[in-house]
Amino acid sequence: MSDVFERLKSAAQEDWDAYVNHMFVFRMGIGALPQAAFQRYLVQDYLFLIQFARANALAIYKSRTLADMRRAKAALSAILDVELNLHIRLSERWGLSSGDLEQAREEPATTAYTRFVLDCGASGDLLDLHTALAPCVIGYGEIGARLADSLGPAHLAEHPYREWIEEYAGPAYQEVAAAARLHLNALAERALTERRFGELAGLFGEACRLEADFWQMSLTI
Amino acid sequence: MSDVFERLKSAAQEDWDAYVNHMFVFRMGIGALPQAAFQRYLVQDYLFLIQFARANALAIYKSRTLADMRRAKAALSAILDVELNLHIRLSERWGLSSGDLEQAREEPATTAYTRFVLDCGASGDLLDLHTALAPCVIGYGEIGARLADSLGPAHLAEHPYREWIEEYAGPAYQEVAAAARLHLNALAERALTERRFGELAGLFGEACRLEADFWQMSLTI
Amino acid sequence: MSDVFERLKSAAQEDWDAYVNHMFVFRMGIGALPQAAFQRYLVQDYLFLIQFARANALAIYKSRTLADMRRAKAALSAILDVELNLHIRLSERWGLSSGDLEQAREEPATTAYTRFVLDCGASGDLLDLHTALAPCVIGYGEIGARLADSLGPAHLAEHPYREWIEEYAGPAYQEVAAAARLHLNALAERALTERRFGELAGLFGEACRLEADFWQMSLTI
Amino acid sequence: MSDVFERLKSAAQEDWDAYVNHMFVFRMGIGALPQAAFQRYLVQDYLFLIQFARANALAIYKSRTLADMRRAKAALSAILDVELNLHIRLSERWGLSSGDLEQAREEPATTAYTRFVLDCGASGDLLDLHTALAPCVIGYGEIGARLADSLGPAHLAEHPYREWIEEYAGPAYQEVAAAARLHLNALAERALTERRFGELAGLFGEACRLEADFWQMSLTI
Repeated sequence: MSDVFERLKSAAQEDWDAYVNHMFVFRMGIGALPQAAFQRYLVQDYLFLIQFARANALAIYKSRTLADMRRAKAALSAILDVELNLHIRLSERWGLSSGDLEQAREEPATTAYTRFVLDCGASGDLLDLHTALAPCVIGYGEIGARLADSLGPAHLAEHPYREWIEEYAGPAYQEVAAAARLHLNALAERALTERRFGELAGLFGEACRLEADFWQMSLTI
Repeated sequence: MSDVFERLKSAAQEDWDAYVNHMFVFRMGIGALPQAAFQRYLVQDYLFLIQFARANALAIYKSRTLADMRRAKAALSAILDVELNLHIRLSERWGLSSGDLEQAREEPATTAYTRFVLDCGASGDLLDLHTALAPCVIGYGEIGARLADSLGPAHLAEHPYREWIEEYAGPAYQEVAAAARLHLNALAERALTERRFGELAGLFGEACRLEADFWQMSLTI
Repeated sequence: MSDVFERLKSAAQEDWDAYVNHMFVFRMGIGALPQAAFQRYLVQDYLFLIQFARANALAIYKSRTLADMRRAKAALSAILDVELNLHIRLSERWGLSSGDLEQAREEPATTAYTRFVLDCGASGDLLDLHTALAPCVIGYGEIGARLADSLGPAHLAEHPYREWIEEYAGPAYQEVAAAARLHLNALAERALTERRFGELAGLFGEACRLEADFWQMSLTI
Repeated sequence: MSDVFERLKSAAQEDWDAYVNHMFVFRMGIGALPQAAFQRYLVQDYLFLIQFARANALAIYKSRTLADMRRAKAALSAILDVELNLHIRLSERWGLSSGDLEQAREEPATTAYTRFVLDCGASGDLLDLHTALAPCVIGYGEIGARLADSLGPAHLAEHPYREWIEEYAGPAYQEVAAAARLHLNALAERALTERRFGELAGLFGEACRLEADFWQMSLTI
């Protein structure tokens, strides 16, 4: 099993499961998530993505080749030019403008996860940074695909959270997640020794716990 | 009112009050804080201080003169060579070694505040960094002095949290806090405009809220 | 005189003049610059721009609003998607591929200026970073415009360095330079005090000297 | 040959030789280095060490354990509390105060090497940072020891650069250099793969060339 992301998931199995099978995800899947919880999530996720855009800018800054810079710039553009727009589009239906979103107060769970990731990147190398980003970037792809598969097209068509699920289950995002997985392997070939693996698995597990806290915060309304 | 710290407190009055008058502080003052809450606090504060030592190292790195480097190095030494030892000394009574402390799992409230401060410093200048540090560095001085004053020497002598209170009320720490206050003024003379003040007050208020969350986490056992 | 760039030029007049009136610029203007010098310049400038792209990524990372992030991202794209291509296009005529350019060994003068700018940004705030970038970003606009004006369209049409001059004298680059000038004023309104001005003028003068060294290196073949 | 420093030297043999056998070192060894060259060197080396102190502060900031933080803090103290004092002591004989030293203008060769090292650290991990520092930290130990050995105690006693040679040949500095060598091995065990070795050797070679430029600058008076 040489795929680094799979190895990290196995090493942090419990934290990974608690994140991807969180009650928030389950309720969203069966369409039983209160709209207020989803709105709360969406506003915080908007603030979250602004910090994740910064994390991708940090990855450009830390790159040593034009190829790496361009890869990280594509990830940055995916957030600034695509992902944030989904949030704005959905939020507008509830009367929230993009300005309202940007001015919202960050919840501690948002602060904790985003600044943890940024600090992994600032204090470590690109492998640390992308390991801390992986539960979000690759995890959302897994969650979206699983929900879409288990619902099937017929149920999905009527689903209250159809747009969110389709965004992350869709081919564009799945490609982003697949590229992130390959990139993690490439970074690992460069700077991953067995001795370091435990340290990375620690960062990965911590990121999963902070993701689960983020879901939990959204439920607590 | 030209003292920057006083201006920041006034601008974030509500957040400041909620932090320094938190139930954790009140209960500690009347000696009614459960020991388990104090232990939980102490372990997390140990992890907290490790990150704050990193924040002071960041301040050295960002300095442009030897005088600034030496000032920040003194703050770093105060944590590594003095403050951590209080925690180790107290924890040893409960059978916790310094290794146990360092291996403890960081609570989200610890992650949120520490990484927020580090990110203020990494993304901003020294004024941002020291503004985000101020509720802790200067605030602990105020809390310690207030508790010591209101208790008086007689009550303090028998107080279950005497050592903690004396540490922060004592002349050595009071000097650290006073120096931090002056340093904030010096940094403000260099790079604070009226336009920027609101932004700094925002960072300060956020830091106070994250400090209050830190007390709250310690109570939730 | 409230334009910050003009104030910086006045404060570092000698260094500014030595940079924009360097023999390299003069010889380029009269078409007497040996092609070998220009080639040497172009290869190093390619490496230089890779580091400047990193400096713009650092500016995104250090931004606190989406507006600032998008502005810095536009500057990053201008380098990665436009400016580098001019270098590739010109270099291909001499049989140098983009891979050859990226693999070339960096000269000390290139290392000195680029890493100085990156360090100003890493250790300071956005105003420090953009002050250190200004001699290049805004200065090239002034040099390009001056050469184009003094030559006039007729001479320019036959000029051996027509493409370079037209790139920096052209409306697209002039707009980049004008936006950079306004941005510097906006950053200064936020965090520039009179006390700090001398420090910034020092960074600016140093950047001009390192730019002049960069021209000089290109002449020394 | 598993010692990383030896492997790096072999991989960058030519650059290493050009640095440690530079004419500056040779002339210093035979006592034929003009005093003006040595003074010029010493002033720039003072500015150099201030930046190297920042590099060690960066290493503290990037550390993940108290042990690593304390190790880096010892290196920082060695510069701020010991090494700078040698420079001040020697410079005072020529009428230069520590203030004069700190106010001197940095030469481009000083800027290039110091900011290159700082950027290696800011953009990479601790292994990158310490690889870029190694030619200086460990190299000075080798140069000092070699000069002291070849001169012998009798010649050294009368040597015009006795203090400098004794400082770096002496047991205190030799211990610093030996510790740095072991630390590099420890960092390599954590994050060095064969694939990465070439990249590190590139950083190491570049650092040697920038060190040689630094000697050369000191000769050019």
